[in-house]
Amino acid sequence: MNFELTKSRVVGVDISGNQTTIGIVDIRGNIIAEESMTTLDYPTITAFVNSLCENIVTLAEQHDGLATVRSVGVSAPSANYLTGSIVNAANMPWTGVIPLAVMMRDQLGLAVGVANDAHAAAMGEKVYGAAHGMKNFIIINIGAGLGSCIFSDGHVHLGAEGFAGEIGHTCVVRGGRQCGCGHRGCLETYVNKRGIVETARELLDEQRDTPSLLRSLDHLSPRTIKECCDQGDELAIETYRRTGAMLGLGLANSASVLDPEAIIFTGGISKAGKWLIGPTRETFENLVFPNTRGKVKMLLSILDNRERDMLGASAVAWDVEEYSLFK
Amino acid sequence: MNFELTKSRVVGVDISGNQTTIGIVDIRGNIIAEESMTTLDYPTITAFVNSLCENIVTLAEQHDGLATVRSVGVSAPSANYLTGSIVNAANMPWTGVIPLAVMMRDQLGLAVGVANDAHAAAMGEKVYGAAHGMKNFIIINIGAGLGSCIFSDGHVHLGAEGFAGEIGHTCVVRGGRQCGCGHRGCLETYVNKRGIVETARELLDEQRDTPSLLRSLDHLSPRTIKECCDQGDELAIETYRRTGAMLGLGLANSASVLDPEAIIFTGGISKAGKWLIGPTRETFENLVFPNTRGKVKMLLSILDNRERDMLGASAVAWDVEEYSLFK
Repeated sequence: MNFELTKSRVVGVDISGNQTTIGIVDIRGNIIAEESMTTLDYPTITAFVNSLCENIVTLAEQHDGLATVRSVGVSAPSANYLTGSIVNAANMPWTGVIPLAVMMRDQLGLAVGVANDAHAAAMGEKVYGAAHGMKNFIIINIGAGLGSCIFSDGHVHLGAEGFAGEIGHTCVVRGGRQCGCGHRGCLETYVNKRGIVETARELLDEQRDTPSLLRSLDHLSPRTIKECCDQGDELAIETYRRTGAMLGLGLANSASVLDPEAIIFTGGISKAGKWLIGPTRETFENLVFPNTRGKVKMLLSILDNRERDMLGASAVAWDVEEYSLFK
Repeated sequence: MNFELTKSRVVGVDISGNQTTIGIVDIRGNIIAEESMTTLDYPTITAFVNSLCENIVTLAEQHDGLATVRSVGVSAPSANYLTGSIVNAANMPWTGVIPLAVMMRDQLGLAVGVANDAHAAAMGEKVYGAAHGMKNFIIINIGAGLGSCIFSDGHVHLGAEGFAGEIGHTCVVRGGRQCGCGHRGCLETYVNKRGIVETARELLDEQRDTPSLLRSLDHLSPRTIKECCDQGDELAIETYRRTGAMLGLGLANSASVLDPEAIIFTGGISKAGKWLIGPTRETFENLVFPNTRGKVKMLLSILDNRERDMLGASAVAWDVEEYSLFK
């Protein structure tokens, strides 16, 4: 038996503030087994890592053993791939700098890569999704925040300290909306869940005489606003038009600098589809540098939510050097 | 005699609208010989390339022979490194797409790399200058235009079609000044030779009652305005302050996306030094994503103009695969 060939699987771990999912994934992206635990149940990071590693070992033992696992990839908020740490995550039970890769590696004896969610999503698209075969692309993950990750010549552009990719925190309106990062006018404040709802409220206020389905909604959300778009509601459509005008500006500026082959949209809000991407494309083409105009594909992720999280984490695992734990 | 070791030199060629300079450069960046020709003397690109290659051969024969030359690097406006072509250069006698690398390679029998001026300047800084040892940095070349080039993990980020690096054409003012690229509000329209003079004129107009040395100048230029800064002139200082505020915004947006180790300034206008870089730094730190704040070095190129052009071109030559002509 060839020892190397037995290492035909990886473990993917997707950590969010509420829930952590563990999966065993093979070379072709089949999710062989999956299990969840409640992130919030663990007041200390040590307790969390102990339980996480136990669960990984148990799950692997139930499916041909840990010897078939090559490496582990983790997708986590505010993760820095260069250091393998989670750094001051906003929505997690644990604060400060958490050296997660080292902690897991020491318990499991496997190489561990820890990447932020946009990085993991980009790896998932590259290995198993819409970016397969692409060397230069941008992934935009729109949900509670606006995350992004840049592929440069076939590799994730990490930057000097691993903090690259903050397209969501480029300034699109000087002195504009207050952002959680402390600045004003960040793209994210116009193009995330809260920002889209705020834009809808502004519009309802500005155009009090325009009838709109939005006025009778119990709950304004990107999803309910999108549903009103589908019914032809003018203010709902205008909400996404303004959102797309901001996103188009931010993406044009990044594309003039990066000249990507494609921009791939993922995350809940990308489900607004044409209502968002249409106006984004229009502003983008008006503002991007002429040499790049008309050449950048805008694609929606072909992975569903479960695939995106688990295949993203597993793609990070395949990208880790197997023997990095011996360095 | 070891054949490989004789290939210890490269030829650098710097092409501008007026003049073309050829140099022979050794591994350590010593310029062994140099010669110029007048670009405008050649109405056709064929005549230009014929003469250029003859001059290269003659210069090499006068200095130990062409056999000592490993490869050729060319710095030219509007060059695309991926295709080796000059594409629609604005200030050159020849129009359209010029496959310069192939034309020169066929005549010389040497590998030839053709890069735009910002790319060549970045290579010069990486190999012989302020970026030595850096893997992630941005070079900003401020003169008649605002060129830039991005190093990602030790390599130039070219983008999908070789057009990356247009920080000068990111939009900093929606509907702002008209740019030569056809758009409005590009960073370049505020931070290049013409843009700085325009800002000074606007200020003189806005503040008619403020006395200023600028009013008595025969010729407003970035250099004369800088000289007035040195004499403490308020409006001259304010001119560079406004310029730096625009540059700081554009660079903060790029740095939030790229997380560079350093930004290196070159080109005539970078000689304004503290008058430009001071206010640039101030706005930059106010707007860049917090994880990157306070970490990005801002450096002035340590190469003089002659070195920048010739060492930039020669660094491109070292970067070309020696046997690429046999592919």
